[in-house]
Amino acid sequence: MVERAEGDLLERFARGERTACARLITLAEARDPRFAALYDRLAARTGHAHRVGLTGPPGAGKSSVVDQLLRHWREADLGKIGVVAVDPSSPFSGGALLGDRVRMSSRLGDPQVFIRSMASRDAHGGLAHASVEACDVLDAWGAERVLLETVGVGQVEYEVSRVCDTTVVVLHPGSGDSVQAMKAGLLELAHVFAINKDDQPGGERLAADLEEMLELRSDLVRERALLGWKPPVLRVSAREGRGIDALANAIDAHRRELERQGAFAEVRRERRAAHVRALVEATLHARFFGSGRGAGELGEELERGLDAGEGPYALAARLCARISGEEQQR
Amino acid sequence: MVERAEGDLLERFARGERTACARLITLAEARDPRFAALYDRLAARTGHAHRVGLTGPPGAGKSSVVDQLLRHWREADLGKIGVVAVDPSSPFSGGALLGDRVRMSSRLGDPQVFIRSMASRDAHGGLAHASVEACDVLDAWGAERVLLETVGVGQVEYEVSRVCDTTVVVLHPGSGDSVQAMKAGLLELAHVFAINKDDQPGGERLAADLEEMLELRSDLVRERALLGWKPPVLRVSAREGRGIDALANAIDAHRRELERQGAFAEVRRERRAAHVRALVEATLHARFFGSGRGAGELGEELERGLDAGEGPYALAARLCARISGEEQQR
Repeated sequence: MVERAEGDLLERFARGERTACARLITLAEARDPRFAALYDRLAARTGHAHRVGLTGPPGAGKSSVVDQLLRHWREADLGKIGVVAVDPSSPFSGGALLGDRVRMSSRLGDPQVFIRSMASRDAHGGLAHASVEACDVLDAWGAERVLLETVGVGQVEYEVSRVCDTTVVVLHPGSGDSVQAMKAGLLELAHVFAINKDDQPGGERLAADLEEMLELRSDLVRERALLGWKPPVLRVSAREGRGIDALANAIDAHRRELERQGAFAEVRRERRAAHVRALVEATLHARFFGSGRGAGELGEELERGLDAGEGPYALAARLCARISGEEQQR
Repeated sequence: MVERAEGDLLERFARGERTACARLITLAEARDPRFAALYDRLAARTGHAHRVGLTGPPGAGKSSVVDQLLRHWREADLGKIGVVAVDPSSPFSGGALLGDRVRMSSRLGDPQVFIRSMASRDAHGGLAHASVEACDVLDAWGAERVLLETVGVGQVEYEVSRVCDTTVVVLHPGSGDSVQAMKAGLLELAHVFAINKDDQPGGERLAADLEEMLELRSDLVRERALLGWKPPVLRVSAREGRGIDALANAIDAHRRELERQGAFAEVRRERRAAHVRALVEATLHARFFGSGRGAGELGEELERGLDAGEGPYALAARLCARISGEEQQR
């Protein structure tokens, strides 16, 4: 059901109004109940944008790389671009570390560029629903490219690779120890490596290390092996604007390869299925366990089971039976 | 239902046999169906151990700090200690970065110390069920202290703080950029800061920075504010064995404060409830969506909805109604 006010919002959105875009993302972030119907209406219009994830350790200069990519694509007049910058570092307060991300961008005021900072509040880890939905909103807004920028090691990088078509891992020469520890994980999910801050010493060495790892551990790159895609290791300096063309080309080349192999559509299908499954889980959790002790339809039953010293697995099985409406004796 | 072989296993476990302990953790890690009944039997014996999470950026020397803490507590003859080292950096292959963790320990062969490396395979982010259950097994084994060691920024640190009583964040002078980016999150969840590698320059500066942040942003430390606990910032050198006594004392002091305020038992109760809720979710997911396309009781329905272009939220609502046994027309 889409009410009048929301109908107007969708109309303004369909005309490409940036304020409507911003409003929709705000509703997603607030988990406003009105967002569901609005999102369902615009979901059909998504799927066109190339989703590019940019991740890497803190201090790698991801924001500067994104800014240079924006400049590159805008100068080539390659259509609208959306950026969602997610800060997962402060789950309690929601974090404001990337709060200045919008103001930091040199593309401020470009009507073809929409940049949004979001805190990841998802207590279950990784990216919140809202981050992914914000990418969808920008996709439906008509963005040719949607960049998802996030700090990350390990899990978050994995999440990014799951919701994006192309994953760019941004490193810098000073990230030595971090890279050492992340290498195995990185090799599995990066489609493109960008070694930023190549104006500092150590870039060549880091590039050589990564190239070597890619050779040695080609067994790890299962998913890419299917594609026959060898992740390029590119040295860039966002500060000097050097290497950005090559990076942009590598990102576009990966998209073309995905399309050539028919993976572009397939990834979208699986991504939508994953989103629906996640919504189902969130809905069930809210209904049966609410938030807080004893809340939700089964919260009290859970507390009683704990009081009685029931085994966790036995209790879980009993609650599952209750949820799916099956009778069960104790 | 606990079969004969499993009954023997529990008996051997009750006698404190390390091989039985190892076997149980292996069953948990493999998500073996026999584990549920075994776990339910030993769950009642958990709750005694002090759960201490050690986390921080790669390269901070967490393993060395853990080793020194083990030495300290064992020399003081303070009972059994369990260590679970979780490597979340490689979600696809399961990662082997901490694979040598056991062999690396100087406590190898100490019958009162049990060290286990685990990969975090949980695609939903953060720590897998098995990591937490391994801590429970070690708790039931009779460990006075269970240390959960993991690499992390952001989300993983949050997960650690959720499943542990006391969270120690290990940093090193070289972690500059990382710390900068993590500060807000760290302030919220660390109970103790350990600045390791204090034999290198920069330790004093990092300590001063952290102290200042703690003063300035006391608004962030909500949870600790309840306890009136001010997280100490301790400079240690695991390599030189310096500062370890003070660190061990701070960890023990935090436990005493938790007990004094009645929070020790409360945390255990909420932790068990969270575990049951997570088991319910995992069970429902496996049953209704299986793994892979079209799998599970509702997998095909999901695929049909996607084929029909049904809105994600509408489809999710319909699947929820099916799960909870409510009739619904399309």
